[in-house]
Amino acid sequence: MKLYEKLADDIQRQIRKGVYRDGDRLQSVRQTSQARKISITTVIRAYLLLESRGLVVSRPQSGFFVSLRNGSQGDSPDVPDTLETPRPIAISASVDVSRLVLSTLRSIATDNAVPLGSPYPDSAGFPFDKLNRYAYAAGRDTSLHDLKNALPPGHPKLIRQIVRRYLDQGLVVDPAEVIITMGATEAINLCLQAVAKPGDVIAVETPTFYAMLHAIERMGMKAIEVPTHPVDGIDIEALAAIARDMPIAACMVMPNFQNPLGYQMPDERKQALVDFATRSDIPIIENGVYNELHFGDTPPSTLKSFDRRGLVLHCASFSKTLTSVYRIGWALPGRYRDQVEKLKFLNTLTTPSIPQLAIAEYLERDGYEHHLRRLRKAYAQHASLMKNVVGRFFPKGSHSSSPAGGYVLWVELPEKVDAMELYQQTLERGITVGPGYMFSVSNSSYRNFIRLNYSSPWSTDIEQAVITVGKIAATCAR
Amino acid sequence: MKLYEKLADDIQRQIRKGVYRDGDRLQSVRQTSQARKISITTVIRAYLLLESRGLVVSRPQSGFFVSLRNGSQGDSPDVPDTLETPRPIAISASVDVSRLVLSTLRSIATDNAVPLGSPYPDSAGFPFDKLNRYAYAAGRDTSLHDLKNALPPGHPKLIRQIVRRYLDQGLVVDPAEVIITMGATEAINLCLQAVAKPGDVIAVETPTFYAMLHAIERMGMKAIEVPTHPVDGIDIEALAAIARDMPIAACMVMPNFQNPLGYQMPDERKQALVDFATRSDIPIIENGVYNELHFGDTPPSTLKSFDRRGLVLHCASFSKTLTSVYRIGWALPGRYRDQVEKLKFLNTLTTPSIPQLAIAEYLERDGYEHHLRRLRKAYAQHASLMKNVVGRFFPKGSHSSSPAGGYVLWVELPEKVDAMELYQQTLERGITVGPGYMFSVSNSSYRNFIRLNYSSPWSTDIEQAVITVGKIAATCAR
Repeated sequence: MKLYEKLADDIQRQIRKGVYRDGDRLQSVRQTSQARKISITTVIRAYLLLESRGLVVSRPQSGFFVSLRNGSQGDSPDVPDTLETPRPIAISASVDVSRLVLSTLRSIATDNAVPLGSPYPDSAGFPFDKLNRYAYAAGRDTSLHDLKNALPPGHPKLIRQIVRRYLDQGLVVDPAEVIITMGATEAINLCLQAVAKPGDVIAVETPTFYAMLHAIERMGMKAIEVPTHPVDGIDIEALAAIARDMPIAACMVMPNFQNPLGYQMPDERKQALVDFATRSDIPIIENGVYNELHFGDTPPSTLKSFDRRGLVLHCASFSKTLTSVYRIGWALPGRYRDQVEKLKFLNTLTTPSIPQLAIAEYLERDGYEHHLRRLRKAYAQHASLMKNVVGRFFPKGSHSSSPAGGYVLWVELPEKVDAMELYQQTLERGITVGPGYMFSVSNSSYRNFIRLNYSSPWSTDIEQAVITVGKIAATCAR
Repeated sequence: MKLYEKLADDIQRQIRKGVYRDGDRLQSVRQTSQARKISITTVIRAYLLLESRGLVVSRPQSGFFVSLRNGSQGDSPDVPDTLETPRPIAISASVDVSRLVLSTLRSIATDNAVPLGSPYPDSAGFPFDKLNRYAYAAGRDTSLHDLKNALPPGHPKLIRQIVRRYLDQGLVVDPAEVIITMGATEAINLCLQAVAKPGDVIAVETPTFYAMLHAIERMGMKAIEVPTHPVDGIDIEALAAIARDMPIAACMVMPNFQNPLGYQMPDERKQALVDFATRSDIPIIENGVYNELHFGDTPPSTLKSFDRRGLVLHCASFSKTLTSVYRIGWALPGRYRDQVEKLKFLNTLTTPSIPQLAIAEYLERDGYEHHLRRLRKAYAQHASLMKNVVGRFFPKGSHSSSPAGGYVLWVELPEKVDAMELYQQTLERGITVGPGYMFSVSNSSYRNFIRLNYSSPWSTDIEQAVITVGKIAATCAR
């Protein structure tokens, strides 16, 4: 971790503890630099990082101020009882959000609507031409057309590249642990099935990425939603309280750049979550699909890196960074590795080798890191631009998240706004939004929330579309 | 259906009814030709077809004789009580053959063993070069790299080709019914999940293709094995009797070129099975992956073609005929179409478009039918050659099936032979076989059976390998 990130984390902790309260001015850049014996640049980078996390705002000529009201952070983190008084916990007899999600996706695919509601990254920046050429070259090898050479766990060349990438980020992974899957979607499904059975209760964040709810739904399991702090992530104390009440078969989380909230769980919270899981012997399914899309310079840590007992099943993919149509993901299932491999075999037999090799070739030969830096920079910019437009054009009482990575913004609208009504009205204007309904098993928790995708190159069209959503929201709020 | 096939079916019915009994001489070719007013060639083709079905043998200078003892047909079909006294029916608390299957597949993949135990077709005859070039051309279309253009049910171009092919074979399919999947494996899994839930009982053939048992296993369902005639297929009367005893949630069958028995269910049995399903309101999952590999000239009918109520969920793929590594299959789920589409979305989100388009292009531009005819002819030849070698070199008391299509031979060995022991010993000699254990949830039903794959080009090596298996079996039989 770099020095400025350490400083930002220190200050964030103090804000959470209530040392700094909403509206407080932070120590000046110069004072902090002298006090900590670090460069002015480092301090400024730390303050800007805190700003990107939505914890401070800079005021021209005045300095940096703690600001906890500018996002779905809602209540300030220095008042811990907002977390300890959880939202009503929804436990689902059966989860059925997928029908809504499917019909939303349908609308996104048709009519060339401005895809603010899309869950997918804009693919314009993806190196599809290179990948296509590598796939062609790989496909000329006859042996790859023999299914017996393509059985799970996956192609050794790709597995090697994945392991190297983790190593570069400080995580030592045994190549024998990696199972290649059809995207992270399959990885999550298989991991869930490896650790739980129909009827079991699975703890999830709230709001949560609906793919998690889907996975639970189709297995006939039940989701219990655990209060989740918009900056710190899942409330471990609330989770522990739930686990005392009922058996929890597994916990599914997205600790980095959570969809839809966009937070990065601080390291000590990650450690605490893994400690809790270890004490309680509850496996954790970690969805890491956005990990590479951090706005800071340092890659976020994974829960996996804190795990000593093989209880974390880490899932990820190339779908958010390189190609979503090749459907190449993977699982690092810890102690559940053999079960996951067997389930992979049962579910889809194998993952095609040719796309695996095309990606391996790209990782080996081309500037993946350079490509990622470009993506991260663009997304960080779009995030701040979209947040700004929302702040200016959305009705009074709206709040937006402050993503630390990824490509979605979570927007709370005034209570009177029904996101489904908003969805219908924006669709008529050729714009999609992601209705909050999709992010919970309870139909009402996020009825006045929407998720906005900022992965597309910023343009007047995008800006106008966001403004239009804000104007329609204003009419719905009346 | 061609004239000679109709004649063969007529005679087969008479054999089943006991009009002809084991050892009886068929009417001479000339007499039949005169009596039925059809050409001598047609009669000979009919008799040869019956021979390929294992029901008659030709004796030089003497004519054609009914022969019901030359295969795992075992007891003659004219004694119906062999069917009405079913094998002990195994009902599984939980099915767990997949571990055995997986380790068998591992062995096949390693050490370049002669793959007699492989479930996969030899890929040497597949047009991988053309497909690879079509995939490259398709992949140059940027819009295909955008996930929103690749959502279920699948690419319209491929769906159109699939529907046309069914139409050529006399089956009218609504394009809107087709869901493209990751091979037939995923299609079967999704169909099963659409019609049944954990704890439900699913009726299967015995012996049955283990992928069916896998699908049942992972859903936490139970398999009940229904006696299956080696020529007529699943015993519908036995199935009906079981259904009177307990609720059956679904029935999974492979009516054409069943793996491992190789039979083609006669049309009137198919009709009867669909009638039973309709009366009892039990959905049927029809595995049609071998349908294109018929040895006769006419494509076999599907259960789907007899279905008027949308109760048949038909699954198939290109994996046995064109490419197994692209993993492109499909489901025609009848009235369960929407559930299957939704489950597809939950399971793997989408099936990659590029391989779909490569196959669509091949179907549109190239001689798929010509390619298939070559495959069928080769497989029919290999089947007869392998059956011949087994007849000559396997220990006394061995019987083999008489496949009417597909690429596997099912061999019953003397009772003393344990297929796992045989498997171990042949593996030491660099040869794999498919142990009978894999084809039932009961560990003992097929302990002295093996499945042999004859898809590889026939060669001295293959012949020697089969002879070696026979010799080792002989030592195991002592």
